[in-house]
Amino acid sequence: MKNSITDRIDRLRDLMKKERIDVYYIPSDDFHGSEFVSDYFKEREYISGFTGSAGTVIVSMDEAVLYTDGRYFLQAEKELEGSGIKLYRDGNKNVPKVNQYLCEILDDGMTLAFDGRCMTTNKVFQMKSYFLRNNKNIIINGSVDLPGIMWEDRPELPDEKGFVLKEEYAGESLKSKILKIREFMYSKSADIFILTSLDDIAWTLNIRGGDVKCSPLVLSYLIVSMDDICFYCGSGKKEDRKLAGIYDYLVDNGICVKGYFDIYEDLKGFEKEVILADLSKVNYKIYSMIERLQINDVYNPTTILKAVKNDTEIKNMRDAHIKDAVAYIKFLYWFKNRSLNQKITELDLCENMLENRSSMDGFISESFEPIVAYGKHGAIVHYSPDENTNAEIENKSFVLIDTGAHYIEGTTDITRTISCGELTEEEKRNYTLVLKGNLALGNAVFMEGATGASLDMLARKPLWDNYMDYNHGTGHGVGYLLNVHEGPNAIRYKVSSVINTPAFKEGMITSNEPGLYLTDKYGIRTENMILCVNKAENEFGKFLGFETLTLVPFETEAIVLNMLNEEERELINSYHERIYTTLHKYFDGNELKFLESITKRI
Amino acid sequence: MKNSITDRIDRLRDLMKKERIDVYYIPSDDFHGSEFVSDYFKEREYISGFTGSAGTVIVSMDEAVLYTDGRYFLQAEKELEGSGIKLYRDGNKNVPKVNQYLCEILDDGMTLAFDGRCMTTNKVFQMKSYFLRNNKNIIINGSVDLPGIMWEDRPELPDEKGFVLKEEYAGESLKSKILKIREFMYSKSADIFILTSLDDIAWTLNIRGGDVKCSPLVLSYLIVSMDDICFYCGSGKKEDRKLAGIYDYLVDNGICVKGYFDIYEDLKGFEKEVILADLSKVNYKIYSMIERLQINDVYNPTTILKAVKNDTEIKNMRDAHIKDAVAYIKFLYWFKNRSLNQKITELDLCENMLENRSSMDGFISESFEPIVAYGKHGAIVHYSPDENTNAEIENKSFVLIDTGAHYIEGTTDITRTISCGELTEEEKRNYTLVLKGNLALGNAVFMEGATGASLDMLARKPLWDNYMDYNHGTGHGVGYLLNVHEGPNAIRYKVSSVINTPAFKEGMITSNEPGLYLTDKYGIRTENMILCVNKAENEFGKFLGFETLTLVPFETEAIVLNMLNEEERELINSYHERIYTTLHKYFDGNELKFLESITKRI
Repeated sequence: MKNSITDRIDRLRDLMKKERIDVYYIPSDDFHGSEFVSDYFKEREYISGFTGSAGTVIVSMDEAVLYTDGRYFLQAEKELEGSGIKLYRDGNKNVPKVNQYLCEILDDGMTLAFDGRCMTTNKVFQMKSYFLRNNKNIIINGSVDLPGIMWEDRPELPDEKGFVLKEEYAGESLKSKILKIREFMYSKSADIFILTSLDDIAWTLNIRGGDVKCSPLVLSYLIVSMDDICFYCGSGKKEDRKLAGIYDYLVDNGICVKGYFDIYEDLKGFEKEVILADLSKVNYKIYSMIERLQINDVYNPTTILKAVKNDTEIKNMRDAHIKDAVAYIKFLYWFKNRSLNQKITELDLCENMLENRSSMDGFISESFEPIVAYGKHGAIVHYSPDENTNAEIENKSFVLIDTGAHYIEGTTDITRTISCGELTEEEKRNYTLVLKGNLALGNAVFMEGATGASLDMLARKPLWDNYMDYNHGTGHGVGYLLNVHEGPNAIRYKVSSVINTPAFKEGMITSNEPGLYLTDKYGIRTENMILCVNKAENEFGKFLGFETLTLVPFETEAIVLNMLNEEERELINSYHERIYTTLHKYFDGNELKFLESITKRI
Repeated sequence: MKNSITDRIDRLRDLMKKERIDVYYIPSDDFHGSEFVSDYFKEREYISGFTGSAGTVIVSMDEAVLYTDGRYFLQAEKELEGSGIKLYRDGNKNVPKVNQYLCEILDDGMTLAFDGRCMTTNKVFQMKSYFLRNNKNIIINGSVDLPGIMWEDRPELPDEKGFVLKEEYAGESLKSKILKIREFMYSKSADIFILTSLDDIAWTLNIRGGDVKCSPLVLSYLIVSMDDICFYCGSGKKEDRKLAGIYDYLVDNGICVKGYFDIYEDLKGFEKEVILADLSKVNYKIYSMIERLQINDVYNPTTILKAVKNDTEIKNMRDAHIKDAVAYIKFLYWFKNRSLNQKITELDLCENMLENRSSMDGFISESFEPIVAYGKHGAIVHYSPDENTNAEIENKSFVLIDTGAHYIEGTTDITRTISCGELTEEEKRNYTLVLKGNLALGNAVFMEGATGASLDMLARKPLWDNYMDYNHGTGHGVGYLLNVHEGPNAIRYKVSSVINTPAFKEGMITSNEPGLYLTDKYGIRTENMILCVNKAENEFGKFLGFETLTLVPFETEAIVLNMLNEEERELINSYHERIYTTLHKYFDGNELKFLESITKRI
């Protein structure tokens, strides 16, 4: 690898010289700002050898650097060895921010280049305004893809089969959704709406696919005008493997299907139109082709529409969670009844979990890379086991298991922290504190208008009162067979923007996942998915609350009873009773006895 | 009054015709966007007869309307009788918003006029952009003061004596503050900083006065450049009653003193300067004189600086609260030992409270109009008694008392809900719920970075859990001998902007005032002032909390003990113990016994 990387950097510099580029910038994004990207888009990995999910490579004539965050410092050190690429630990003191670094290495009149398709417009705006504030006169070239020229054995663009999500699952027709979009366009006096985020497109058209790992999406763009709808995908031909299952459906709905790359040609055709586009999502290449037009920069209306699940989606989501719970409890039965002589590892747990889930009807895929973290691995928030790290489960401490799945009925995301045998008093105490936070949030009552910033307090209070905390948000929105992380709803105490701190609405589905991480010791997290529901309306106004969708018991072996008040104890008992009542018919024999035992009153 | 108002509207229309004005708009603000305005500025009251604190009059050739909010509907109905002015109940369904109404009555090419000194720049921007979005081409004239021309017996501009707030009270010199402002200007590449909000000016210069009711401020403007500082106030002459006590001090500090109205002339002199100005504060007339220049619109740096109290201010604030508590407990002693045969009213309570406070050394004024609301009056959130409403205190239910004072050592704001005799079980239960919220917030522990949106949950949870709520914020920032309501710190669950939802910082002082209001029955509110303090720093980060500054016991007669958990009970007992320990030396005889009795353990 060493030699190939230094070679690649050298060849990149040759191309830069030819194109008169002083600094070349390689981010990790695909053309759509997706959370997970397919191999075709991994230019940053190709050029640097660094395989982490987040990072930016910046190459000048004098040096090549990789920026990445705390999750990946160790991995990057290792992977960059011998490559000549310097590691910049983003967030560390004395490490300049990316834009500051660019300012330092770029003199007035120099050229910075990148593939504008891999950068959101707002990201480039931030870069430009940083240069402006620092009186730097930099030429920005966002329309070259130099690694793309060099990359000989580049993987193909993903080409998985698309399929139609029938109305019994989607709950609302494509036509009805398009109508809502056009109403929004009309209210903003817009002629054209450009939609590039894959979850928004899949939601709008009621199609799904498999182009993005762990997200059943279809690589595509969508342009909606008042008269036409254009869908850019694959070759644009009916015979296309990706299109075969959705082509007729789309055409029957009046949608014109074109090739994935044709959008850039079509954008040239607009002349006087007013464009609606979310510049925090739309890539910079698209923006640079429409900047001559009037652009109305708005938060995608589809993002807000799809965050509020309709009745069909809610009913299905409940069903998906029953399936997921059945699979989960079978997994738990297997794990809790393992022979203590048998060597069992984190990867074994991953495998058994997947086996149980994939045996359920309607299973599509995992909804994210599973986190199965034993003991001290649990304290590494983004840990996923691989052949090198795979730990053996001992007869003590916790294993933290954060996994999820897509079923045709919807998406799950659940974390349980499971006792592997003997627990210390401290482990139990901390488990109980985290559980108290989860219970308080899951059973919250709040006025309409309250946001995740207020709700977050409920989950953290038991920890904060004890001068402890977890360094991540308490909850993220969850898509319906789309992305497992979906905005705008979120539960976190830091308020960075109003749009990311929206008021909760009935029908929003969010995770509830307080945790606690003690470095080199263990990690605890308890995560349920919660549906926002109406609780009451009276002279004071409308009160909302949550219904917990997840149906897997808490780890009662880890609960310190005298740390719970009566109400908390009753909340656990009634939750466990609901689980038993809902699930017992799916089990018999020893498994049923097991279900009984893990849901019995405490 | 009737005739004089219709006369005034007629005369206003004559002037409008002469000036070719189609619609004239009269807001309630002074030239500085102050919360309280002095009589000189009450043009809206002069023209309409409506005396409420909030309202806008709009006069066209066809009609005259008054917009006001729910607090004033009844009062406005009464006061507008016979005036011919139509009442528009702002916030009610079917009542167009002000800008929408303007759009309806103004045709393309028509002229809307107002006194731009009484409108913040942002308010006019909002108006303009509303017209733009609705394709209305309106001519805006912001430089006429028609009521000012008509108003013959207009009150004089306030002319109260200014005084220097010595460093033993201010804790930081004028020079040091100016240095910080200039550093900020430098960071924003600005040449000139225009400061128009009176609390920011008083804080910057360490001066106080009496020009604004309940706020010891000095009517003035301030312009800071890198070399000069110009203070616009009164006649600008040393002999001026307002300036006599501060003129030499200012001049000695290198400040040029000019007349209050001279600023408008001086603004004409700027040519190429970059101007720093908070357009949410600066009035539109000032803006229209500098719009030809480059304006850097920022949140006033002084607002953020003064929100974090320095050590001297904190020490003094503690002292002010001791004084206030001594006065308050004397008041309570008088009230609780009143003869039950004696007729006693809300206004009697106001009077006795003021008497006790004003007998304390260093008393300056009340910090806002006192709210003393017996029984059902307590449910009217902004109720203040007057001769017409003054209720007699009976031997039952609650009296809600929200009052405060300015002392040379700082500012207080306290609400207690006091039992007047017998209480119902419901009254006690609700009192206890509100108290539980106050205790939870006052004793919160939270990570640095948390905002008032998160903290608000603690105060509301006991009520929300019982499907009850109060329709106001839980806490507002409090100025140091400035305004009793001071941003940006606040505690409220609605997130409307990031700047109004800042993270808490050590040294911020905020109110903690949950309540409950049952229409036609009673109101409950318990308000303390709380100082943000460091609680701990460890591997998780920095934890903050609060120190309660207010030192007046809760109403133990209204507490339902079995609704409190052990911790809450202990919080009340330790608070009452701290009160006794701090205050007992100021009392003797029966008053000391009284203090003992109201602070004894529960």
